[in-house]
Amino acid sequence: MIKTAIIGASGYSGEELIRILASHPSCEISIITSRQYAGEPIGTVFPRFSWMDLKFSKPDIEEIKKVADVVFLALPHGLAAEYAEPLFNAGLKVIDISADFRVRDTEIYKKYYNVDHPAPKLLKSAVYGLPELYRDDIKKSSLIACAGCYPTTILLPSVPLLKAGIVSAEDIVVSSMSGVTGAGRKVDLPYIFPEVNESLRAYAVNGHRHLSEIEQELACAAGKDVKINFLPHLVPVNRGINSTIIFKPGPNFKQGAVLETLENAYIDEFFVKVLPCGTLSDTKHVTGTNFCEIGHAYDEHTDKVIITSTIDNLTKGASGQAVQCMNILCGVNETEGLI
Amino acid sequence: MIKTAIIGASGYSGEELIRILASHPSCEISIITSRQYAGEPIGTVFPRFSWMDLKFSKPDIEEIKKVADVVFLALPHGLAAEYAEPLFNAGLKVIDISADFRVRDTEIYKKYYNVDHPAPKLLKSAVYGLPELYRDDIKKSSLIACAGCYPTTILLPSVPLLKAGIVSAEDIVVSSMSGVTGAGRKVDLPYIFPEVNESLRAYAVNGHRHLSEIEQELACAAGKDVKINFLPHLVPVNRGINSTIIFKPGPNFKQGAVLETLENAYIDEFFVKVLPCGTLSDTKHVTGTNFCEIGHAYDEHTDKVIITSTIDNLTKGASGQAVQCMNILCGVNETEGLI
Amino acid sequence: MIKTAIIGASGYSGEELIRILASHPSCEISIITSRQYAGEPIGTVFPRFSWMDLKFSKPDIEEIKKVADVVFLALPHGLAAEYAEPLFNAGLKVIDISADFRVRDTEIYKKYYNVDHPAPKLLKSAVYGLPELYRDDIKKSSLIACAGCYPTTILLPSVPLLKAGIVSAEDIVVSSMSGVTGAGRKVDLPYIFPEVNESLRAYAVNGHRHLSEIEQELACAAGKDVKINFLPHLVPVNRGINSTIIFKPGPNFKQGAVLETLENAYIDEFFVKVLPCGTLSDTKHVTGTNFCEIGHAYDEHTDKVIITSTIDNLTKGASGQAVQCMNILCGVNETEGLI
Amino acid sequence: MIKTAIIGASGYSGEELIRILASHPSCEISIITSRQYAGEPIGTVFPRFSWMDLKFSKPDIEEIKKVADVVFLALPHGLAAEYAEPLFNAGLKVIDISADFRVRDTEIYKKYYNVDHPAPKLLKSAVYGLPELYRDDIKKSSLIACAGCYPTTILLPSVPLLKAGIVSAEDIVVSSMSGVTGAGRKVDLPYIFPEVNESLRAYAVNGHRHLSEIEQELACAAGKDVKINFLPHLVPVNRGINSTIIFKPGPNFKQGAVLETLENAYIDEFFVKVLPCGTLSDTKHVTGTNFCEIGHAYDEHTDKVIITSTIDNLTKGASGQAVQCMNILCGVNETEGLI
Repeated sequence: MIKTAIIGASGYSGEELIRILASHPSCEISIITSRQYAGEPIGTVFPRFSWMDLKFSKPDIEEIKKVADVVFLALPHGLAAEYAEPLFNAGLKVIDISADFRVRDTEIYKKYYNVDHPAPKLLKSAVYGLPELYRDDIKKSSLIACAGCYPTTILLPSVPLLKAGIVSAEDIVVSSMSGVTGAGRKVDLPYIFPEVNESLRAYAVNGHRHLSEIEQELACAAGKDVKINFLPHLVPVNRGINSTIIFKPGPNFKQGAVLETLENAYIDEFFVKVLPCGTLSDTKHVTGTNFCEIGHAYDEHTDKVIITSTIDNLTKGASGQAVQCMNILCGVNETEGLI
Repeated sequence: MIKTAIIGASGYSGEELIRILASHPSCEISIITSRQYAGEPIGTVFPRFSWMDLKFSKPDIEEIKKVADVVFLALPHGLAAEYAEPLFNAGLKVIDISADFRVRDTEIYKKYYNVDHPAPKLLKSAVYGLPELYRDDIKKSSLIACAGCYPTTILLPSVPLLKAGIVSAEDIVVSSMSGVTGAGRKVDLPYIFPEVNESLRAYAVNGHRHLSEIEQELACAAGKDVKINFLPHLVPVNRGINSTIIFKPGPNFKQGAVLETLENAYIDEFFVKVLPCGTLSDTKHVTGTNFCEIGHAYDEHTDKVIITSTIDNLTKGASGQAVQCMNILCGVNETEGLI
Repeated sequence: MIKTAIIGASGYSGEELIRILASHPSCEISIITSRQYAGEPIGTVFPRFSWMDLKFSKPDIEEIKKVADVVFLALPHGLAAEYAEPLFNAGLKVIDISADFRVRDTEIYKKYYNVDHPAPKLLKSAVYGLPELYRDDIKKSSLIACAGCYPTTILLPSVPLLKAGIVSAEDIVVSSMSGVTGAGRKVDLPYIFPEVNESLRAYAVNGHRHLSEIEQELACAAGKDVKINFLPHLVPVNRGINSTIIFKPGPNFKQGAVLETLENAYIDEFFVKVLPCGTLSDTKHVTGTNFCEIGHAYDEHTDKVIITSTIDNLTKGASGQAVQCMNILCGVNETEGLI
Repeated sequence: MIKTAIIGASGYSGEELIRILASHPSCEISIITSRQYAGEPIGTVFPRFSWMDLKFSKPDIEEIKKVADVVFLALPHGLAAEYAEPLFNAGLKVIDISADFRVRDTEIYKKYYNVDHPAPKLLKSAVYGLPELYRDDIKKSSLIACAGCYPTTILLPSVPLLKAGIVSAEDIVVSSMSGVTGAGRKVDLPYIFPEVNESLRAYAVNGHRHLSEIEQELACAAGKDVKINFLPHLVPVNRGINSTIIFKPGPNFKQGAVLETLENAYIDEFFVKVLPCGTLSDTKHVTGTNFCEIGHAYDEHTDKVIITSTIDNLTKGASGQAVQCMNILCGVNETEGLI
């Protein structure tokens, strides 16, 4: 049995990790931490888990080292790195759901997160935790920077299409919608029910933090710098992200090439589902699952390729992805605990 | 008192028209029709209006001529024209909420609506019912083709910016989200509560019918053909549309020009609210009102202008707009019944 | 024009008052106060009202006296009385939406609100603000204690039935559901969107504060002490209350008596709508209106009378009721501004 | 591996059964049937399951006999019995989610379901499928009539309290709220999104069909006839039922007796969670799980016991319960596939 620790377990990503690990056949949860709820049984914060014999404890690095093989960090950026460093150095496998190790360039990290990178030496040891793109690296690594929720929806369809030259890297526009758990368990006026319910709004349209990792990975795929427009929106659902992406055709574009490229890229990928041309995706099809559903259409009128890509932001967008990474680096079946 | 008739009054646009007209100081509702509910008191279909002394009747053109000065058509496209023709010819003022008279080119109508135009001779008498752009024409006309819901959100910010050369007409992308009443009172599996609730999805991304009127009006503003990408999404709210629009800067773009142009364009327009740069709009601010709220930001990173524009799809997107048009052509205060 | 002041205008009741008064033909809003937002234009807190030329000010009793004839108190209980006293003594008409003057017995007030009554001398001047039951007293009074939201749904059907002996005062059980605005604009973990959405729960089932006024008024109707069970629930809608009430038949019960009694009681009441036997009410029919919709059924199996009663908690349950009271005591048409 | 068939698999109960069985370690799904979708791959109806290699087929009794050990009937009442009879007679284990075999008295069945019982001879072979109350009988039976969703919430707390005389069987009132999936995948105007969203309403308050089984089982517990008031409500959530139950104290009531009795009754029951006195339940704690959460309070004021009881209507209220029954009668661990 793999012994796991969840640091910062009292938020929505923590809750989803506990849900998944509770029924994972090869795992046990050894420790869950929360500074705010230390000493409380798990059922105080998550009544749905009160059948589990677990208490929140203060995050104590020595204690974690003793009881865990794999550590999940479900902490705010900045704070995550403080735990990642000693735990990684002690030889534990660290799977970080925060943004701390996703961006390889510390200047860009600083630009988007407004602080100096908290652990720059560790960056070269980190692998971007998007298994469909970095599986082999994940296998060999002990520090996984799980891909963000929006980035996962965008990169899964975009990377193979850019690599194959089916779409152009110029003038990419992404319009995304996210459920409210994407903002974390935030107690603030704009997030109370009557303010969010029956409300639709865009936010951070000119510089959302996830741009940093999205453009980093798109550049890898395109072989050159890529700048995109990323337009996130908040909508009144609990879970789910839809990204609608619009591309100019690339040099190798032709009728049927989008479907062929995506199908070839993901034919052996259990968690990526490519829909036939003209069929679009729906978050309803993936909520509570680790799937990414990808739809597409071609618009003759403007000669554009349009992709829709949906995930559950807490599963494939956070905790499911983290478990998928754990399965890979621990050598168990990649879908274990995830279906 | 202006005597009004509402043809096809049992849908959501009809309901919103009744709500507005019921408290309009210069109007009375003389007749409401519905083939399905003919003979039923209004309270059978809309219990909230059971205090009103009205019954649905079969739509009878002779009867309507006798009792009404102004006729609102809240009918499906195709059917609306059948009523518009005899009523207009009889000298009544006709305000059509359907799409039948919005598109001036019958070829384009046919392309998008898949039928021959049902009343091509009337087209030249029709005015596009977006008061902020066509007020003077509306004053003189007796056939108003109320602008569609999505088009209203898109045209209000785009037209003045294009006209002034602040934004380019090339590569415009619009991503919109609509509440479910936008689909009408449709009884179909994809619209039942458990299918829509907690669901996010794009639809009709390569050829939504509203493209026809959007591009027609953008072309007028730009002085040349315009082709855009219009990406509509269905989200689980009852009312509200948000459109997020991305433009390349135009020849006259400079710092502050977006705000200045929009403020100048709408300084005397009661129903258009221009937000300061960096503040985005929210459907919550406009639901149940006839306002359009317009926000914007400039993205340095990609050198793009980003606009967000929100309305209530049933009010400024349909029935409120219709009443605003009526107020104009009947010579009463334009905001009457709408605040 | 009646000059009105709204004290504590930045919450949901304040917002609804502003909405109603903005289109009230005989009123103007002279002042809106908020300690938190003093100095801010109204649009900062309520963007939907940014067209209005109003700023929040600190609540200054001398200033209010100068500019207002009628004062609405949309404040927490306890605080409301502090403003009511000097304003009432200065001769203004005071309409209090809080609970401070609803309960005539200061011992009961203390039991339910856990503080000594803040202005016991004023109590005898206060009238319970439920126009359908206390219209004549309201006309003559200058201090109106608007009935609470839950109480309004319960008292409107119960009072005439108890008075007429159609139902028994023993073993009354009321199960109510309320939208989230009923909790006020409260920024607290249990009220953020992901916690409330897709959640159903009872609360305060053995001693909700509204019991104090409900039982007071039921006792008046029954002519003896009444103790009921009141079971409130929180459900994921913004607005609306439904109360389902179960009664044993009273001495004068017979077939048809419930409908006859309710119809007779409310035949001249514009805002109470009595449905035929077997038809139940729906909050959807009354949201955004000042109506109370009352349905009923008789259960042969257990020999019980079942009533359902629905209102919009912010309109007939708070601000609409307050305006209805103002209309009465200012001598304007009772429905003005409310349809 | 247990070979299972799901008859009538295209509704919400069918979907939930597939979800649970797909990850059940001791089960495989051999056949899923749907007359409407026969021939279609599972992904056509349920895109979330498109990774599964299953097609809907016409329900063919001979075929089912060949491939299945256990048959789940997710059919409307009336129709379920038509399949139950030949499959039971052929020696298969039949787990019926419909109401056909829940009510032991055919007269009562006819009164509530308006048809003669379709298979009266089979009734004596059927066991009421509420494992916490009938586990031993379920073990020995091959025809399980899974308890209904509302009844499950009501019976789990009520049966032990009635048996122990802690509460009285007189004047029981139950007020319940259900999510919309409880109505099935019904395409009808009252169930489309804009009609249900932001709506609260009671229905069937004087004779809901589930009364038949509720009173049957309460009578067993009380040792005498029991008549209750059952007040169901429809609310805008997808999943979840809350029942709030009010009892008069019984002969053995005393301080602490409710908690003691419920804890003793369910100390070994994994799926029943009894909360401490004063803590109420929330559907949010159980959605997607097979748990029933029971809260309670004592109201001194009226001397009443108040219970709240919540489940997920599709899991513990239908398909989870069905799998729990299957686990019992197939001799596998009762929680398998359910955590």
